[in-house]
Amino acid sequence: MSGEIEFWFDFASTYSYVAAMRVEAEAARVGARVLWRPFLLGPLFSEQQGIKDSPFNVNPVRGRYMWRDMERLCAKYGLAWRKPSAFPRNSTLAARVALVGAEEPWGPDFARAVYSANFAQDQDISSRAVLEELLAKVGADARAVLARAESGENKPRLREQTTRAAQLGLFGAPNFIVSGELFFGQDRLDDALGSLSSSAGR
Amino acid sequence: MSGEIEFWFDFASTYSYVAAMRVEAEAARVGARVLWRPFLLGPLFSEQQGIKDSPFNVNPVRGRYMWRDMERLCAKYGLAWRKPSAFPRNSTLAARVALVGAEEPWGPDFARAVYSANFAQDQDISSRAVLEELLAKVGADARAVLARAESGENKPRLREQTTRAAQLGLFGAPNFIVSGELFFGQDRLDDALGSLSSSAGR
Repeated sequence: MSGEIEFWFDFASTYSYVAAMRVEAEAARVGARVLWRPFLLGPLFSEQQGIKDSPFNVNPVRGRYMWRDMERLCAKYGLAWRKPSAFPRNSTLAARVALVGAEEPWGPDFARAVYSANFAQDQDISSRAVLEELLAKVGADARAVLARAESGENKPRLREQTTRAAQLGLFGAPNFIVSGELFFGQDRLDDALGSLSSSAGR
Repeated sequence: MSGEIEFWFDFASTYSYVAAMRVEAEAARVGARVLWRPFLLGPLFSEQQGIKDSPFNVNPVRGRYMWRDMERLCAKYGLAWRKPSAFPRNSTLAARVALVGAEEPWGPDFARAVYSANFAQDQDISSRAVLEELLAKVGADARAVLARAESGENKPRLREQTTRAAQLGLFGAPNFIVSGELFFGQDRLDDALGSLSSSAGR
């Protein structure tokens, strides 16, 4: 074991899909533990950029590149890919469930299942029914988990986690944090894990 | 030889500095030729985002991350680094010179010298005197080159190159183009060169 890597993600984020599918296997190679940190990008985009939509929709030139890039990255890493018919999908309920899951053994499986639903199966991950099905598939007590996710105790926790994301200086997703150092973007996973090994060696 | 990689850059762009210092050596490993393509980000940012400044200044949260990230990347690749006291610096004249240099043996050396001046020595690369000195250092006839750069023939060429950048779907820098495929960001140099090898193998 050589420490921990925090993985900050939003289920609506395309590049976070690539990161989510790779992070556990890559972390395992260096014996690191992954801490899954769901948060919502919407409030950050709104506060920092004054936009109410994905930056990839606001700037369609950048959006066109991203869609092509996702095809290539999924091919590179052997991930299933289908361009979603709706983007971005509302990820609030899924994030609330993932926050519950962060303390449960089914958490990482659930997170990967949500990403696959959104970006490989073009399913509506804002739908309660879809999430219920995914929870059952990963061995969770779907109804009980959804009740916890939507409880008056859990909802403010997601808001707090998003506030924490802003305090940490996040402005997009995915992000990795290792020993207080922030790495933004799926293509920086190796750098993040590399910094873990080098800080452990010091 | 296995083909060509186009390198699209703006001298004001921090991440382009990292790419500019690495691209020739990395391309040489796979026997590829680098085509240096200076262009101006300003008109693209203005048209696509309606901003008149660097996105890193417009969103200071993203800016803070970039400055920290540049320190780390320069350390990783063994590049000198000093945070410039002015950012972004006007890169128009330097780009006009680089466009002349793209057809000359001193072109790549000049481009690297401008990046080092901006990001390792905190020099004002918008200054004619600074560029004159850099040209002399890389063995060019400084006065003659500057005259060509500022000629009525060359100025529209830079505008055309920037228009071409927009047509190619660029929205930032640095960029690599291999066989018509666009790769955005310094961290995608390996992917770009990898695609070159695989397309050569087909």
